Amino acid sequence: MKRETIEKPNQLPEKRELGKWFNRILDMADIVDYSYPLKGCGVWKGYGWSIRNNAIAIIRELLAETEHVEMYFPFLVPENIFNKEAEFIRGFEDEVYWVTHGGLNELNEKLVIRPTSETPMYCMFAKWIRTHADLPLKVWQVVSVFRYETKTTRPMMRVREVTTFKEAHTAHLTYEEAAKQVEEGIDVYSKFFDALCLPYCVSKRPKFDTFPGADYTYSFDIIFPEGKTLQIGTVHNLGETFSRAFNITCKDTKGEDHYVSQTCYGISERAIASLIQIHGDDHGMVLPPGVAPVQVVIVPIFYKDSMEEVEGFARTVYASLSSHFRVFLDNSNERPARKFYNWELKGVPLRIEIGAREVRKSAVTLVRRDTFDRVEASVDNLKEEIENQLENLEETLRKKAWRHQNANTHSVASFFSMEQEDAVDVLLDDHGEYNGGIVKVPVCGDNVCLEMLSKYVDVLGVPYEKEKEVKGTCICGSPAKQVITVAKMY
Amino acid sequence: MKRETIEKPNQLPEKRELGKWFNRILDMADIVDYSYPLKGCGVWKGYGWSIRNNAIAIIRELLAETEHVEMYFPFLVPENIFNKEAEFIRGFEDEVYWVTHGGLNELNEKLVIRPTSETPMYCMFAKWIRTHADLPLKVWQVVSVFRYETKTTRPMMRVREVTTFKEAHTAHLTYEEAAKQVEEGIDVYSKFFDALCLPYCVSKRPKFDTFPGADYTYSFDIIFPEGKTLQIGTVHNLGETFSRAFNITCKDTKGEDHYVSQTCYGISERAIASLIQIHGDDHGMVLPPGVAPVQVVIVPIFYKDSMEEVEGFARTVYASLSSHFRVFLDNSNERPARKFYNWELKGVPLRIEIGAREVRKSAVTLVRRDTFDRVEASVDNLKEEIENQLENLEETLRKKAWRHQNANTHSVASFFSMEQEDAVDVLLDDHGEYNGGIVKVPVCGDNVCLEMLSKYVDVLGVPYEKEKEVKGTCICGSPAKQVITVAKMY
Repeated sequence: MKRETIEKPNQLPEKRELGKWFNRILDMADIVDYSYPLKGCGVWKGYGWSIRNNAIAIIRELLAETEHVEMYFPFLVPENIFNKEAEFIRGFEDEVYWVTHGGLNELNEKLVIRPTSETPMYCMFAKWIRTHADLPLKVWQVVSVFRYETKTTRPMMRVREVTTFKEAHTAHLTYEEAAKQVEEGIDVYSKFFDALCLPYCVSKRPKFDTFPGADYTYSFDIIFPEGKTLQIGTVHNLGETFSRAFNITCKDTKGEDHYVSQTCYGISERAIASLIQIHGDDHGMVLPPGVAPVQVVIVPIFYKDSMEEVEGFARTVYASLSSHFRVFLDNSNERPARKFYNWELKGVPLRIEIGAREVRKSAVTLVRRDTFDRVEASVDNLKEEIENQLENLEETLRKKAWRHQNANTHSVASFFSMEQEDAVDVLLDDHGEYNGGIVKVPVCGDNVCLEMLSKYVDVLGVPYEKEKEVKGTCICGSPAKQVITVAKMY
Repeated sequence: MKRETIEKPNQLPEKRELGKWFNRILDMADIVDYSYPLKGCGVWKGYGWSIRNNAIAIIRELLAETEHVEMYFPFLVPENIFNKEAEFIRGFEDEVYWVTHGGLNELNEKLVIRPTSETPMYCMFAKWIRTHADLPLKVWQVVSVFRYETKTTRPMMRVREVTTFKEAHTAHLTYEEAAKQVEEGIDVYSKFFDALCLPYCVSKRPKFDTFPGADYTYSFDIIFPEGKTLQIGTVHNLGETFSRAFNITCKDTKGEDHYVSQTCYGISERAIASLIQIHGDDHGMVLPPGVAPVQVVIVPIFYKDSMEEVEGFARTVYASLSSHFRVFLDNSNERPARKFYNWELKGVPLRIEIGAREVRKSAVTLVRRDTFDRVEASVDNLKEEIENQLENLEETLRKKAWRHQNANTHSVASFFSMEQEDAVDVLLDDHGEYNGGIVKVPVCGDNVCLEMLSKYVDVLGVPYEKEKEVKGTCICGSPAKQVITVAKMY
């Protein structure tokens, strides 16, 4: 059923107008305010910051389980430290901010605001690592980093102050161990995105799109509702590039000096931008329970003659749940319909309605945010019922998101073809407009062919999960030896 | 009993050499590494960062209880926003870092790295506040701020990157409400320092030492073991200074426009520096349970014939405690004495020793970090026993710290006196060396007299807790009307 809508300035646009919808949600649901007078910098408001902190708590637990140590490295980097690795500098020289003055004085040495923390971290790794007993070293931090974006900035997706850059950095005795660590990084991020109910496609980026200084880069890409993909995480094997530049060596068991092998991997607030845009609907956000600041909202429905009973009962229900869930009892003077509207906008997974009828039956009505299904639950096993409902909702969100991702991931026999459906047919509609999705394209594997393809589409790379069978023809006419994923990226 | 010590490079100096002791502890206990190649910037290592995060969790709870909303405001401030309030600029122009270049380009407008967040916050307050219904607005954040310190930097106490600046900012309809909010701020910080077992003296700073732009400033000062005081928190009533500069107005119930009245208050990692230095002893840190990354460490004591039993029993004990406390089972191959040394250094409040004897008796031996008292506890009520011990240890730390603060807070009849003990007698020893402590000095209250005193000592200000009775003579010869606290500050 199509809802009739009258466009009002304060109203949420329909979800299919994704960009407008997202910008309005950020404002209406107190997520981030981008009216700050500096391009690409926003103010995280209370509700948004709480979602963000809940997401960090999830990754913190995953990183603790895998013995990563949380630390904090300085924000400013002296020029001579930043400039130690040539390829890295080339990758970042156009997009770093320089601090040149302290007070009224010009500084003796310019300072870089970290665009990512390889350089401030690795100058310390060189001091800390002496022998193989100091390895593996696995550290992480969540910090603000800055990129002087010259492209158009986009709320939470392309910003100048990346406020929630979660970066992990590791050092190992051998290259093989670093390669193994890349797999652990991919596994940790997979679990993190699973917890956020976000699907992903992991690809090994082509050489020309590898992180500056890295041997190879894996990337997590998600397909947005309108079809474009967004990179939401990267995992890099740095090999010995930085250990040679920073002279990070360690003695092996025979007392011989080696350069360590390194990895690093990062995610950012793009994960939050994604979960809002992937799961939301025309009513607003739908938050996975793990990150929802309020998991259950209790809305008492007052009639004059039952006011006291209902309020008392609502308080009892609140008290019985508040040590198990993040619960909010909305006792404000708004009308219930208004409260429903507000909490639906804010994506609260479960609503509990309590009126006179519920009090009489010693029960509550549970309403799910994703399906709006209503179910009556006795107070006797309410905790278990809520646990089930939240679990089910989470599973439903995850499956739905994966269905969209899978439905928009296609395989073709070749990139261009006169006979069969090709990548262009899939990516573009009849009017030449972008259709969206990811297409798996057979290629010979030669870098020249990848560069050729990258003139037409964004090349994501070779899928992390091996294809069972490779068929078809490369753009160069040779028989395909592998498959790569291509798309249109944000 | 004096311990005989041989100075070894890696050994902890005695606590009475406070500066040396503190620097060694920071390194040996993995707190902060100041060998980063930029003056006044350090790397928080795992154990230190965990202490810091536990402390933040305490203040987060106190601020949530008092309805402060956690947000995040941008790190960079455009020059024209920073320059809106003249007195504020004068206070900070010597100590801010300027960003002048993005990539290879000079920026159109210079950007300040926030030294504190009045300006980035208040330009947003002006957008957010419309009517009295939007008030009070109470927000906070914990962030890095930068000060271009030209004085000698000191680990965690005077740094260039203040990594843990917890700042709260509020806006109110009336000046009276702002004044009330100052009291709430003082109350919240008192509870925070209580949780850290830290004593404090709250004083209203003299006019010449008030925060730039504030009407008045209250400060929390703590007396360090060697007698100097350190400012560990401040609470400011900003009145309408900033609301006029940033045009933050609101309509009252009659629809009339008013400038809002504002407050702000801050604490920093100085709280961590203090708790390490106040509670520590010759063996290392002694951490209050609330901030200890490990509250209970289990050390199994193996003998060949009982190894399996002991290990099994230790695991059972660990499993029974791990959901109630932050417990660590030290199963490493180090000798027990070495483990004791390490965990004493790291200030773990309680140690559990388990050997063959304990297994036989189905009991454990508990050793307190502060007193080294040993007590046997049955496994049957171990949780309760540990709760009691931790509570008692916390209370003991708090009392001991307050005893030192009170013993070093003196009252005199006048600042200089030929007849009686005066402030100079108390503050200096017979050799003219600084003795330490805080002295309460009777004054007439005139600013000229305070400025005169500030040439000899640091004037902390008028105590927040009213003196019962004021006697004595001011430096100018007039009878005293109030008391002020003076000291020598870090």
